[in-house]
Amino acid sequence: MIKNKVGRYVPLYVNGIKQVAFKGVDKYKPKGNKASPAISSCTDYPKNGNKLVRNLKEALKFSGLKDGMTISTHHHLRNGDTVTNYLFDVVHSMGIKNITWSPSASFPCHEYLIKYLEDGTIHHIEGSLNGPLGKYASMGKMKGTGVLRSHGGRYQAIQDGEVHIDIAVIAAPTADMFGNANGLYGKSACGGLGFALADSIYADKVIVVTDNLVEFPCTPWQISGNNVDYVVQVDTIGDPAQIVSGTTEITKSPDRLLIAEYVAEFMDVAGILRNGFSFQAGAGGTSLAFIPFLKEKMKQKNIKARFVRGGSTKYLVELLEEGLTEYILDGQTFDLEGVRSMRENPKHIMTSPFTSYNFHGKGNFASMVDAVVLGATEVDINFNANVVTHSDGLLLHGIGGWQNCLYAGCTILAVPSFRDRIPVIVDDVTTLCGPGELIDVVITERGIAINPRRTDLIKKVKNSSLPIRSIKEIQQEVYEICGKPEKPKIDRRKIVAVVKWVDGTLLDSVYKVTE
Amino acid sequence: MIKNKVGRYVPLYVNGIKQVAFKGVDKYKPKGNKASPAISSCTDYPKNGNKLVRNLKEALKFSGLKDGMTISTHHHLRNGDTVTNYLFDVVHSMGIKNITWSPSASFPCHEYLIKYLEDGTIHHIEGSLNGPLGKYASMGKMKGTGVLRSHGGRYQAIQDGEVHIDIAVIAAPTADMFGNANGLYGKSACGGLGFALADSIYADKVIVVTDNLVEFPCTPWQISGNNVDYVVQVDTIGDPAQIVSGTTEITKSPDRLLIAEYVAEFMDVAGILRNGFSFQAGAGGTSLAFIPFLKEKMKQKNIKARFVRGGSTKYLVELLEEGLTEYILDGQTFDLEGVRSMRENPKHIMTSPFTSYNFHGKGNFASMVDAVVLGATEVDINFNANVVTHSDGLLLHGIGGWQNCLYAGCTILAVPSFRDRIPVIVDDVTTLCGPGELIDVVITERGIAINPRRTDLIKKVKNSSLPIRSIKEIQQEVYEICGKPEKPKIDRRKIVAVVKWVDGTLLDSVYKVTE
Repeated sequence: MIKNKVGRYVPLYVNGIKQVAFKGVDKYKPKGNKASPAISSCTDYPKNGNKLVRNLKEALKFSGLKDGMTISTHHHLRNGDTVTNYLFDVVHSMGIKNITWSPSASFPCHEYLIKYLEDGTIHHIEGSLNGPLGKYASMGKMKGTGVLRSHGGRYQAIQDGEVHIDIAVIAAPTADMFGNANGLYGKSACGGLGFALADSIYADKVIVVTDNLVEFPCTPWQISGNNVDYVVQVDTIGDPAQIVSGTTEITKSPDRLLIAEYVAEFMDVAGILRNGFSFQAGAGGTSLAFIPFLKEKMKQKNIKARFVRGGSTKYLVELLEEGLTEYILDGQTFDLEGVRSMRENPKHIMTSPFTSYNFHGKGNFASMVDAVVLGATEVDINFNANVVTHSDGLLLHGIGGWQNCLYAGCTILAVPSFRDRIPVIVDDVTTLCGPGELIDVVITERGIAINPRRTDLIKKVKNSSLPIRSIKEIQQEVYEICGKPEKPKIDRRKIVAVVKWVDGTLLDSVYKVTE
Repeated sequence: MIKNKVGRYVPLYVNGIKQVAFKGVDKYKPKGNKASPAISSCTDYPKNGNKLVRNLKEALKFSGLKDGMTISTHHHLRNGDTVTNYLFDVVHSMGIKNITWSPSASFPCHEYLIKYLEDGTIHHIEGSLNGPLGKYASMGKMKGTGVLRSHGGRYQAIQDGEVHIDIAVIAAPTADMFGNANGLYGKSACGGLGFALADSIYADKVIVVTDNLVEFPCTPWQISGNNVDYVVQVDTIGDPAQIVSGTTEITKSPDRLLIAEYVAEFMDVAGILRNGFSFQAGAGGTSLAFIPFLKEKMKQKNIKARFVRGGSTKYLVELLEEGLTEYILDGQTFDLEGVRSMRENPKHIMTSPFTSYNFHGKGNFASMVDAVVLGATEVDINFNANVVTHSDGLLLHGIGGWQNCLYAGCTILAVPSFRDRIPVIVDDVTTLCGPGELIDVVITERGIAINPRRTDLIKKVKNSSLPIRSIKEIQQEVYEICGKPEKPKIDRRKIVAVVKWVDGTLLDSVYKVTE
């Protein structure tokens, strides 16, 4: 264990691989070269382009599946994904053990896989650990150590060869026999497939699994068949009701709506709201809730955005269709309106973690966004924030694109000051996911705290009617109401997961919860 | 020099790099891994995405240009390209020497560069040598050896690390400050930019040069800004009249029209013309000429193609717009109608040499096409064909996608039996570019020769009215008319260029012409 630049203890090795400790924002420069997949030859692929095999078992067999390999999946089917559970049923039926499962994210539906973690089919999960799987890991039950990465960090790790994927299994709402695939059409349409991009490029073997096989060419090919080895046709890849919710709901809580109103007002007063501006909103109820308020202001002032970044929802689609933004640059679609819009509107553009978030590229979109509005489980008085654990230490959420988004021109955390009588604004975050220097504004129902580093923002809002307060003041008020939060009961000798920064260095550790 | 599998002599080393001799169609399996570019970091790029630098000289300086480097350009601006000549003016002005210029193709407009070949600014050209540059090389005047690759072979060579590009200079009809670029809009619109794809992915440094800078995001990004280092704004990147011809003209020669009619009739009789079929046509006057004949048949028989492959022209666009094909899968646009259609029609799809032609991928589109109609400078009695040299040995043409297309279900060469009283159907081709086993049918104004290997085709057309003859018979008739062609006056000790096969092996050598 070593103490990194921000005072957090991180291990020297994770799952046997040497690590680099976090050195500070923008301080670590990668060396070396990108991963270089084996050269393929068309002589090994059918000339007529037909890569269909009988079933997933055959595809896995042809792919050379063996003990100890890494298999990846994507999470565009969200909580409706049935492919991953089926995949591990098949892996289990083949008697294969010790697989590293590398999903772009896991969902509650994957609780099913705990039995395969128990019986050794899956060794450990290298990817986000939401809900039940996170709790399982927190209890110290998972072999190996979880590695938590942002969406951009996952692309970076695969691109840089830190994660080598032996077999990528890509669930595709539409595909052709050659392996060209998209998420726009079919009964399981989910929007884009960008989270599977790195997998398709860098994995040794790539299997596309579809329930909507169309004639070549399947266009657009968000996944290029030229990277695909086998195509498997199945009855269903998921539960449409769970893949995208019919509607995305904005919070109805008066406190949260107040936060949302503050966010919109802040963006206006701080001068962010101007013609040609851009913003991104998380998918949480509070993050979403500021959009209608912002929209009103945009209409009143006749202001148009150049682009908004998704996760897309009907709220963003309305902005696009009403001419209030020129583009949606979308990473994943959260509801049916998002899917429809991406399918129909050439200005609703599918992006990928490569274009949007990869920190080891020649720039990315995230840092070009004027303002981003995000949530957090905890924020401390130094503006450090946590998105993966709760105050009790339980690992219950993935990082998503959260870390990547912190590079926006103005990063706003829209959070209640406490939840269920547990403070959100705290002395010190349980797990550090975002260094305070990148978090500019914390907006709660009790007031707005601006990071002292952002003297420009402080100056801009000085004479406004906004309830600007110090974060310390808000924190103390919350502690007065809720009491000082108890320290999580954790065993600091037992690391269950590590949190990577966007550059692949180790930002913090997540410990075993002991009760 | 060694004799390869098809009896052609090829050097062991080319420009100091060890070579593999051609081993037969589908016989060579590549080993090793793809090229792996250095890992970049967003810390080295402006957070606001603005990569604009003052001028090309500054961009080249920042890119670390030095003697002996390889610089690449693409040929989507065709004979209207002014960026490449300007680029080498700048390189020359910086006092840099011995550059390897690696274009995706050269055009007559690049005759201008002969002075830089003379003065040592450019060491040699590794790419197609058309017209004046080819003649210059043929005379033995170029230092180094030309390396002639197909479009797919160029992608393969860059991907496999056989060609390492230090600096890619990508002329872009439209781009944003981040480097996202396309060829669809602006005064210099050329359609797609697919030939620059490999360069953008694998070159150390990537410079985008545009005369139409738009606000971020420039969409669609055929070139992703995430691969781009610098953006340069210039007044003009080319001469629109030469970039795309206003109209593409079909041959008016009665002989050539007869060939075209035979092609369409052959495709019908041989059963290629059926619902859901696909074809590709070269851009030559004869290759194009069969399309109107085919179209008539399609209309009469109510037959629709699933896709046609471009190079696109107004003839293909008409098929798309009249509902006679569902898609155009396009590699480059040859006329203004092609550009318009690609811009407007979501079913006119830009492809790249990666998707269409790369032989070291997991399949490619070329082998999925039912029939391709191509030209040739010579075809011999074993169906071997030549596209780069004339019978006098002069290297006057690039290979284009020609070799890659030979993998189609039925490869048809539509050629006159002689040109300017010089036989096209010969005993033995001057330079071997396409092995006879991949060439199925040779259609001339004197008759149609089917490769004896294609017993299926021979059977299908047996009872038709088509003038089926042996290729030997046609060749003898041509020799009777024109006389036996003179052997080219060449110096077999002096290789001026080599012809690569699609798998990177050496198929043949091109020799110095001595008079």
